[in-house]
Amino acid sequence: MPEFELKAYLAQRKQLIDSALEDLFPIPSGLQKKVVEAARYSLFAGGKRLRPILCLAAADVAGGPIEPVIPAACALEMIHTYSLIHDDLPAMDNDDFRRGVPTNHKVFGEAIAVLAGDALLTEAFEFLAAGAGNGVPPDRVLEVIRIAVRASGYRGMIGGQMIDLECENRKVDLATVEYMHVHKTGALLSGSLEIGAILGGGDDPLLKAMKNYGHHLGLAFQITDDLLDVEGDATLMGKTPGSDQAKNKMTYPALLGVAQSREAAAEHVNRALEALESFDEKAEPLRAIAKYLLVRKA
Amino acid sequence: MPEFELKAYLAQRKQLIDSALEDLFPIPSGLQKKVVEAARYSLFAGGKRLRPILCLAAADVAGGPIEPVIPAACALEMIHTYSLIHDDLPAMDNDDFRRGVPTNHKVFGEAIAVLAGDALLTEAFEFLAAGAGNGVPPDRVLEVIRIAVRASGYRGMIGGQMIDLECENRKVDLATVEYMHVHKTGALLSGSLEIGAILGGGDDPLLKAMKNYGHHLGLAFQITDDLLDVEGDATLMGKTPGSDQAKNKMTYPALLGVAQSREAAAEHVNRALEALESFDEKAEPLRAIAKYLLVRKA
Repeated sequence: MPEFELKAYLAQRKQLIDSALEDLFPIPSGLQKKVVEAARYSLFAGGKRLRPILCLAAADVAGGPIEPVIPAACALEMIHTYSLIHDDLPAMDNDDFRRGVPTNHKVFGEAIAVLAGDALLTEAFEFLAAGAGNGVPPDRVLEVIRIAVRASGYRGMIGGQMIDLECENRKVDLATVEYMHVHKTGALLSGSLEIGAILGGGDDPLLKAMKNYGHHLGLAFQITDDLLDVEGDATLMGKTPGSDQAKNKMTYPALLGVAQSREAAAEHVNRALEALESFDEKAEPLRAIAKYLLVRKA
Repeated sequence: MPEFELKAYLAQRKQLIDSALEDLFPIPSGLQKKVVEAARYSLFAGGKRLRPILCLAAADVAGGPIEPVIPAACALEMIHTYSLIHDDLPAMDNDDFRRGVPTNHKVFGEAIAVLAGDALLTEAFEFLAAGAGNGVPPDRVLEVIRIAVRASGYRGMIGGQMIDLECENRKVDLATVEYMHVHKTGALLSGSLEIGAILGGGDDPLLKAMKNYGHHLGLAFQITDDLLDVEGDATLMGKTPGSDQAKNKMTYPALLGVAQSREAAAEHVNRALEALESFDEKAEPLRAIAKYLLVRKA
């Protein structure tokens, strides 16, 4: 089998998502337009579109057409973006830059940044509900909405951010750090895969496999992210390495050391690949994404 | 016909909503529990439950049972509560008290207040989706979700808050103030009524009537709110009269004077009542609520 062309695949899918987001979320007229301008500023600030790409890839594994899945895939990027806007606020992580450009509140002010995040989260549910207009049975669409709530709410991502706040400046063990990441990042990654699988018409074993793959992918993603913060190249990353340490964040390298963190990442990538064992070449993009984490530079 | 007992009706419905909210949104275990504690703090901080009550009242007019509507009614209160938490933040209105108790960020800090608002908004969509488990056809439930998005997102409430920010410390005309209120408050009130009507099985003319009633009720509500700020009793209101003026907010009394504002409120109440003309005694609660605005003391 020829090697899977991950770079071209990711570029093509990113373009698909970028252009769908452009269409789905236009700037309105009227005095309220600035909140959408602010939301779009962060939405188009250089995201890799990982969650939408995973969502579409899972729909591919399920064998469904991806067109009816695109609005939901976009919704996942909107949820991710809102969480970054709120996370960057002075009261939260107080970040001035993200991906090399000023954060939302640095450009639009805090009040509009709060509202822009709220608007992205709210609108995401319009696009999660949109599958019904594209031939997906409405009860499946409702299941997707419930999964999105659980992945992004207090049982998922928001819970993870709360755990992160609770752990700040506190000595915590590896299990707690992992518990935090599983909620903060893993839940929405897994949720994106599950949502793609459901909208693609996948059955229960496929859903379980996607959830399992997403769990390990999420942890491998976080560990390699932490490693980049220790070893990464500022230009490629668009942020300054060492910022985790400066903020006294509990990271895998801090808890395990660099060598053991690398091993842990490789182990999670292997587990992610195992979750895909029963699938044919349709799962090749997901395999390539997992393997890529071990060689990522940004 | 004996006079409708509005006070007893509102108390009974409020109790129904309070107890449903208590059940639907329990405190989880784990390190993430504080975000739900914070959300519940504001959720149970003395709200009148106007949006859920309107939602259930519209379902009554539609002739449907109210039980399947209760989770969606609760969701509307959660959306309203999240908007208050975010609105009170230092970067927004910077309010230390609401309904006589400290605002969320004064108790839990700004970071948790942002997350608590986010959690309430996210979870609301779980309860809006819940109607499907209660016998409502799934496509009607999806329609409800879309209405909630439009009523609360940038096309509704969030848009209204953005317009409010844009108008701050600026001389604006009556049309602009009205445009702001129609979005900021009116959209979610109308949305609550539409959602109740849909979940109650109402037809298109009923939906239109509810929307129309909600539009005028919302404006009457806002005008009487502004009037209370000029003339109200601090003890009954749980906030200090005159705060609008102190903040340089554009209000109806500031634009029209007190006498003409009273006339405008009465006119909107009449229009709200006209929207209900074709309905029988099932619409009596909605009529009583509209009439009450003209004699409200808080």
